[in-house]
Amino acid sequence: MVALSELNGLDLEGFVAALGGTFEFAPWVAKAAYARRPFATVAGLHETLMAIFRAAPREQQLAFLRGQTVLSRRAMTRDSEREHRGAGLETLGPRLAARYGEMNDAYLARFGYPFYIAVLRYSLAANFAELERRLAHDADTELATAVRELFFVTRLRIAAHVEGEGAPLVNGRLSTHVLDTQAGRPAAGLAIALYEEAAGRYHRVTTAVTNADGRTDRPLIGGRPLPIGRYELRFGVGDHFRRRGIEGGDPPFFDIVPLRFSIAEPEGHYHVPLLCTPWSYSTYRGS
Amino acid sequence: MVALSELNGLDLEGFVAALGGTFEFAPWVAKAAYARRPFATVAGLHETLMAIFRAAPREQQLAFLRGQTVLSRRAMTRDSEREHRGAGLETLGPRLAARYGEMNDAYLARFGYPFYIAVLRYSLAANFAELERRLAHDADTELATAVRELFFVTRLRIAAHVEGEGAPLVNGRLSTHVLDTQAGRPAAGLAIALYEEAAGRYHRVTTAVTNADGRTDRPLIGGRPLPIGRYELRFGVGDHFRRRGIEGGDPPFFDIVPLRFSIAEPEGHYHVPLLCTPWSYSTYRGS
Amino acid sequence: MVALSELNGLDLEGFVAALGGTFEFAPWVAKAAYARRPFATVAGLHETLMAIFRAAPREQQLAFLRGQTVLSRRAMTRDSEREHRGAGLETLGPRLAARYGEMNDAYLARFGYPFYIAVLRYSLAANFAELERRLAHDADTELATAVRELFFVTRLRIAAHVEGEGAPLVNGRLSTHVLDTQAGRPAAGLAIALYEEAAGRYHRVTTAVTNADGRTDRPLIGGRPLPIGRYELRFGVGDHFRRRGIEGGDPPFFDIVPLRFSIAEPEGHYHVPLLCTPWSYSTYRGS
Amino acid sequence: MVALSELNGLDLEGFVAALGGTFEFAPWVAKAAYARRPFATVAGLHETLMAIFRAAPREQQLAFLRGQTVLSRRAMTRDSEREHRGAGLETLGPRLAARYGEMNDAYLARFGYPFYIAVLRYSLAANFAELERRLAHDADTELATAVRELFFVTRLRIAAHVEGEGAPLVNGRLSTHVLDTQAGRPAAGLAIALYEEAAGRYHRVTTAVTNADGRTDRPLIGGRPLPIGRYELRFGVGDHFRRRGIEGGDPPFFDIVPLRFSIAEPEGHYHVPLLCTPWSYSTYRGS
Repeated sequence: MVALSELNGLDLEGFVAALGGTFEFAPWVAKAAYARRPFATVAGLHETLMAIFRAAPREQQLAFLRGQTVLSRRAMTRDSEREHRGAGLETLGPRLAARYGEMNDAYLARFGYPFYIAVLRYSLAANFAELERRLAHDADTELATAVRELFFVTRLRIAAHVEGEGAPLVNGRLSTHVLDTQAGRPAAGLAIALYEEAAGRYHRVTTAVTNADGRTDRPLIGGRPLPIGRYELRFGVGDHFRRRGIEGGDPPFFDIVPLRFSIAEPEGHYHVPLLCTPWSYSTYRGS
Repeated sequence: MVALSELNGLDLEGFVAALGGTFEFAPWVAKAAYARRPFATVAGLHETLMAIFRAAPREQQLAFLRGQTVLSRRAMTRDSEREHRGAGLETLGPRLAARYGEMNDAYLARFGYPFYIAVLRYSLAANFAELERRLAHDADTELATAVRELFFVTRLRIAAHVEGEGAPLVNGRLSTHVLDTQAGRPAAGLAIALYEEAAGRYHRVTTAVTNADGRTDRPLIGGRPLPIGRYELRFGVGDHFRRRGIEGGDPPFFDIVPLRFSIAEPEGHYHVPLLCTPWSYSTYRGS
Repeated sequence: MVALSELNGLDLEGFVAALGGTFEFAPWVAKAAYARRPFATVAGLHETLMAIFRAAPREQQLAFLRGQTVLSRRAMTRDSEREHRGAGLETLGPRLAARYGEMNDAYLARFGYPFYIAVLRYSLAANFAELERRLAHDADTELATAVRELFFVTRLRIAAHVEGEGAPLVNGRLSTHVLDTQAGRPAAGLAIALYEEAAGRYHRVTTAVTNADGRTDRPLIGGRPLPIGRYELRFGVGDHFRRRGIEGGDPPFFDIVPLRFSIAEPEGHYHVPLLCTPWSYSTYRGS
Repeated sequence: MVALSELNGLDLEGFVAALGGTFEFAPWVAKAAYARRPFATVAGLHETLMAIFRAAPREQQLAFLRGQTVLSRRAMTRDSEREHRGAGLETLGPRLAARYGEMNDAYLARFGYPFYIAVLRYSLAANFAELERRLAHDADTELATAVRELFFVTRLRIAAHVEGEGAPLVNGRLSTHVLDTQAGRPAAGLAIALYEEAAGRYHRVTTAVTNADGRTDRPLIGGRPLPIGRYELRFGVGDHFRRRGIEGGDPPFFDIVPLRFSIAEPEGHYHVPLLCTPWSYSTYRGS
């Protein structure tokens, strides 16, 4: 982590070295930015870097993209973060995984550079869908789309490596809250699991248990962008009321309550609470 | 269909013939009931038949059960009604289907008569679970359980063949209702599908589209007992608001809304409505 | 009550006599309609009568209006239906009641005919507000407004006196339904009161107790137009849960639950249900 | 404000002076507590003081109570905090205000000391009801009740004057939150008013406008005990949707939405949110 004020005071070599990882193999971006110091905000620094990239000749932009390895494919297969979330490429099944490889090859053949995407901002299924959608683009539209993804990738890198005033908002948050409206108090000790959709099935991302305030100690997803995609939250409502000794049918009318929703804004705050009795429940996008 | 008043007036031979199908291969039940005419209600007739069966010597009850074919296995494989609902034995997969066969064999070996169950009152999964549960019974408990199932089977037959005063309640009803609380009116033209759980997966039972009143023209299940089991209703909420031109996120925050619930009372009325906006919904067991 | 078919077959004198009460002191309307027989629907008959009135010379329309007694003032003071509903002119208090009289006088002075309004379609407060609003009209706008009210008045009369195909919809319905979502069943025996707003206070219109289905045996308002106005429903939620022995705070968190809403469509169906636990409730315009 | 550590280090005179205002005119309580220093927590200090008071001879307790001025009557008439909240004794109307005076006189005559109550923990109506209820007590029950009130009064004073570890919880909190579930976001700029019931009418306590998060910048009541009583929150839902240009009927189906609830725990947290569309709303006791 480098402070913005420190960055503003570096010499050219130091400045380029400090920002080297932002635009990989493209020191010309940082070099051009050097002249525009000092930067008042971290977001301003990032915007300047992107403005330099956008103003560069098309051939230079394409050269940059050609130099990128197949980021998203690697991310979808080996990336540790992805593995942690449990939805790697193999999740798609052999047929779709092969299809993903073929589409990457087709993309490279069509546009002359590998498929470039801000992999942290997409679920596996959304990444797949994006590749499919972008394959149909013409060259200009697709270049603009790749540069837009570059914007998100480099913004994340800047936010991770430079600290100071005016840091860009790069993280989203997914949270929940369970109220037992039969008892008029938070539902404590209730089991929650979060699933992410891929290839028509739901894969578990994380689990949690509600605390005394009916919330989870940590956000279900936090400290990173929310991957665009479809999700399902599952709440152990039947067990909760069984533990409380409340009659709710045998088997209980509601046992596991699923809430399905989509995330469309990776930097947004999604609060998806559950208000429940043994015989009713409601949910909403909260704040 | 025979009228109760007509039944009351028949001679012994006619009376036994008219009720012949109720207790298959056991004309002694109807014969004994003949002396107790006239019957004031259809339910009273059925209760009398069952009282006679229950008062019979244990050996006679066992002989009756031994004479029954393996009803539920047949029902779960070939029964047209079951096929129509889309959850036949093959739904369980080859491993569980084989296990079901083995358990039937074990049951026959243990109790000396085939597994007897009021097949219309159970989902495939519940039928399977009942067989598993009942295998652990001792002989007395299981005989009482089988006689209880006989009660439900014969009640359905009596209700289907005898008309008149005091008919027993044998049918349940599952219905829904969709209100668009954003517009303050019923959601018309919204697609609904009902699924039944078996072996951890949900199998489609029926589909419907809401009418101008937000209801389905016919109950989702009606005119029969509701099979005990786990269900999922799926509502095309995303499409509904898209058609109305209402913005609800891209992709929409809610697309297919699933409601999972259990049915525990085959003769009950389950009304499971959905109140929805693009950003919130609620449900409850209604009436 | 006269049948439409019978009406179609009457001679001129009989026809005019039969419809005499519809346009009071204006037999010329019925006379002109006689030539347009037969009428296929009751609504068609009414539309024809109104078309004749609308096509009449302005002076003839004004003469009709001048011949009307001060209907609404009488209705608001002595009308038995109004008294039954408990919100007569005295409800407004002496100051507003006097103001109502003055506005009627001003209206007569300004337009040359008494204030004409379909009194059954307005609450006392809405009637008052209409008079205030209409006093500011120019002569043409007000004549059109008075004729529109005449449309509603005569439609009610036709619907009340002529039966047959295609009867116009003249009645609305206000109903409710209480679900105890803690118990998962209708709330039976729960006390409900309906109030109507006038001069900033709420005056009781009717009371009811829910039946076994959580509904009232009769609509709260039915068999008549719903008076445009502001209403409050009050539900005895605290007593309901106290009777059930459910703890809900001492004093209970919710005791009398008030729902305030407006009726804007006298011929509409307003279903205003309550879903409640001791600690939560919801309502919506249902169907 | 004095620090607990400082208090622990004072000499007898200083200690008694520092705590002098807690038990007015009863330095014997503080004197006896001096020997039990040091105190580990503020709550422990308060419990010790009360234990000393409770262990004192009955006559000494009664002497203390006789020495109190008629606290609550004064509070209900002149207390600035009460006036601020807008529900002084005159709110009850002359008849009930006179009745309150008579009951105070009767209380003094019956028990030999003035009515003692922790006035901050009661609404005017609840204070009145307590006086009425306590008048029926026998001498022992009432003395215990008065001592319980003394517990609350002195706890508030200790919390206000001594700072340090283990401060007792003396304040409650009433908050709200408005979600526009039609838009899927907090309702900003929505007007809220809080009313308190007295003598069957609702008197305004405070008003607020929701901020960008749909909350109020400060709790509706906070930094003090919540007065036990009946309340009504009123939300300007009609105006909110009108500003957003959303059609909700003319007049709007919901205009001012009232939520009536009771507070029973002065030190509790009451969160009473509203989720609303133009055609539906729900509320619950949240956390």
